[in-house]
Amino acid sequence: MTYQYSQRVPESDEDPVGNILKVAGSPSVISFAGGLPAPELFPIAALKKVTNEVFDQSGRQALQYSAAIGHPGLRQQIVKRMGREGVDTQIENVMITTGSQQSIDLVAKMFVNPGDTVIVEKPTYLCALDVFRSYGAHIVGVEMDENGMRMDALEKAVADNPNTKFIYTIPNFQNPTGRTMTADRREKMVEIADRADIMIMEDDPYGAIRFAGDDIEPIKFYDRNERVIYLSTFSKILAPGLRLGWIVAEKNFIKKCTLMKQSADVHSDNLTQHIVAKFMEEYDINEHINKIKKVYRQRERVMMTAIETFFPKGVNYSHPEGGLFIWVEVPGDIDTKELFDTCIKHDVAFVPGEPFYPDKVIPGTFRLNYSNMSEDQIKTGIKRLGTAIKETIGVQV
Amino acid sequence: MTYQYSQRVPESDEDPVGNILKVAGSPSVISFAGGLPAPELFPIAALKKVTNEVFDQSGRQALQYSAAIGHPGLRQQIVKRMGREGVDTQIENVMITTGSQQSIDLVAKMFVNPGDTVIVEKPTYLCALDVFRSYGAHIVGVEMDENGMRMDALEKAVADNPNTKFIYTIPNFQNPTGRTMTADRREKMVEIADRADIMIMEDDPYGAIRFAGDDIEPIKFYDRNERVIYLSTFSKILAPGLRLGWIVAEKNFIKKCTLMKQSADVHSDNLTQHIVAKFMEEYDINEHINKIKKVYRQRERVMMTAIETFFPKGVNYSHPEGGLFIWVEVPGDIDTKELFDTCIKHDVAFVPGEPFYPDKVIPGTFRLNYSNMSEDQIKTGIKRLGTAIKETIGVQV
Repeated sequence: MTYQYSQRVPESDEDPVGNILKVAGSPSVISFAGGLPAPELFPIAALKKVTNEVFDQSGRQALQYSAAIGHPGLRQQIVKRMGREGVDTQIENVMITTGSQQSIDLVAKMFVNPGDTVIVEKPTYLCALDVFRSYGAHIVGVEMDENGMRMDALEKAVADNPNTKFIYTIPNFQNPTGRTMTADRREKMVEIADRADIMIMEDDPYGAIRFAGDDIEPIKFYDRNERVIYLSTFSKILAPGLRLGWIVAEKNFIKKCTLMKQSADVHSDNLTQHIVAKFMEEYDINEHINKIKKVYRQRERVMMTAIETFFPKGVNYSHPEGGLFIWVEVPGDIDTKELFDTCIKHDVAFVPGEPFYPDKVIPGTFRLNYSNMSEDQIKTGIKRLGTAIKETIGVQV
Repeated sequence: MTYQYSQRVPESDEDPVGNILKVAGSPSVISFAGGLPAPELFPIAALKKVTNEVFDQSGRQALQYSAAIGHPGLRQQIVKRMGREGVDTQIENVMITTGSQQSIDLVAKMFVNPGDTVIVEKPTYLCALDVFRSYGAHIVGVEMDENGMRMDALEKAVADNPNTKFIYTIPNFQNPTGRTMTADRREKMVEIADRADIMIMEDDPYGAIRFAGDDIEPIKFYDRNERVIYLSTFSKILAPGLRLGWIVAEKNFIKKCTLMKQSADVHSDNLTQHIVAKFMEEYDINEHINKIKKVYRQRERVMMTAIETFFPKGVNYSHPEGGLFIWVEVPGDIDTKELFDTCIKHDVAFVPGEPFYPDKVIPGTFRLNYSNMSEDQIKTGIKRLGTAIKETIGVQV
């Protein structure tokens, strides 16, 4: 039979990024394409220890159905963690989700009627774009510079789109650009949202992985009118396979969001929630995060040095102070999907910039990840990439 | 600020079933309200053993991001399991979800445009109704009898609603009625769907827990045109806290559904998928299911005998051959929400029938669960319940 899909389903069965990751996954390829954390840093021994304790001490509870809002022990740990980051909150304001992706999906489902506007950074996290599209959002991209989303462009976008529901932003070490929004702009964004009476979805998966520069308070810190919905996750600070994220927001919103979550998957994996809660009780997660930062900082340094050495002049790139990504801009009108094909011949891969753009694509861009390859692989891979770029833009190799 | 929610969000913050479960959760109350499996049957020692093996042998893979479609090892186990149930399928036709609730949500999201009709049994699983409503479905309930959904009523519903997208059915030990659809009706349902060219969502969380009578092939067994989307879960045969379910369907549908799942939560908990795959490799899950059946059959027998002893004449109830639930019909126009309040005074609880009805509520109904209380509690609880019913309908106690 021919299936009559709803309007939420993209017509195309194409999964361009999936295809890129598949090609990049070939064993001979040095891949800077994915956004995978370094698996050699997963605290396996500690997780194994606390998992055994969960089975021994609370196996029946951990394996049974539980509340949609999440395990209280884990929510309490998140209250503590948020306090450290400058956000004073209570357990009623915290819910657990099946990773940040589910947080984005729930919030979008709750706010976006078909035709409503969602304002995003240009470029931005591509799987957030997929979600917004699936609910029929009109997506408006706002220009960025090295200091994050430009506030003059945001003011214009808000003025031009009176049906805006929320601004979606990744203020720290943004995916894909690695850029960080300044404190001034964060405060300004809240002012703009206050004036227009719209929400802000602050997606912060990378904020804890700052390895240079000074911490900046989350946008939520500046929130006076409960309009900031703050999202974060254990994917980058512990392990993404566990699929656990959290939302911090106004408590009546959390109540409603919990009902929506109940419809989505009843609750997130309860065994895993117990494991992570116990890990945070018994270990200092910040000590673990410090190990991650040290390794990522070193890899980022190696990649930067290799870029300076092997990339031709005229190529621009971001200088992240944390997170997982560097954003590259190649001069001219290079189609980086074609550059990708050349790179695959040289056994190196990245993600072309196109899918990160909500609308008009700026050519000649791509994203590099430095968290998932060894220092040697980074050096070799960037050298290959430099050769491929030179071939493509016609510089003498 | 006042949040401007989308049309998908119910206006009311009421959670009537949540409130019932809260009241029923009081320590003094014998609760037949929830749908919880017996936690004393969770195979904790075996799960602990295989979890340690997962950490030792494949910790890095299990804790890393993985494919949205699910862990191949687990999907292969499900192919084997489906074969045993009369459904010959391949790994390409199987995807893993974060429990059946997510399966229902994904399928509804993929098919239902606002105003499209979804046909359901009357009464049916209330959290499926929540999902269908959230996507703007027009829900049409079809009468049941002791043999499941009535096919004459289904034919009429299909004829009356040319914009029907799918039939949602729980053919085995239905929630809430405990009733099972006959093989004849299953075959007939596929014929009706073929003629009208609509889908069937076959939700089968309880089918494996048959403790009396003969096995009946799934509706999927009769499917000639890839129109049956089959859903099942580990919640009732292993442990619901793990939040793992699966979908079996046509392989191009599975591909599209995988893209939607990627947007929903990237993938289901990978550690848990590895644990369950290993459990199924090393242990015979059917042996474990046999233990569950034995205990549930005994509890059902005890509840039935107590009902025969303590309920007044004129009360009708279903006679399940498996699953977790008995459905009760009290004579007269008794409001079972009021009966619930009386019962709470007697320290016993159930779920009133109302939320299970998609439209016109049939008064005087409620659901009893027998899987989660000991035999002694069942005897005492049903005695209390009998007293409360007699008080309410005015029979001499």
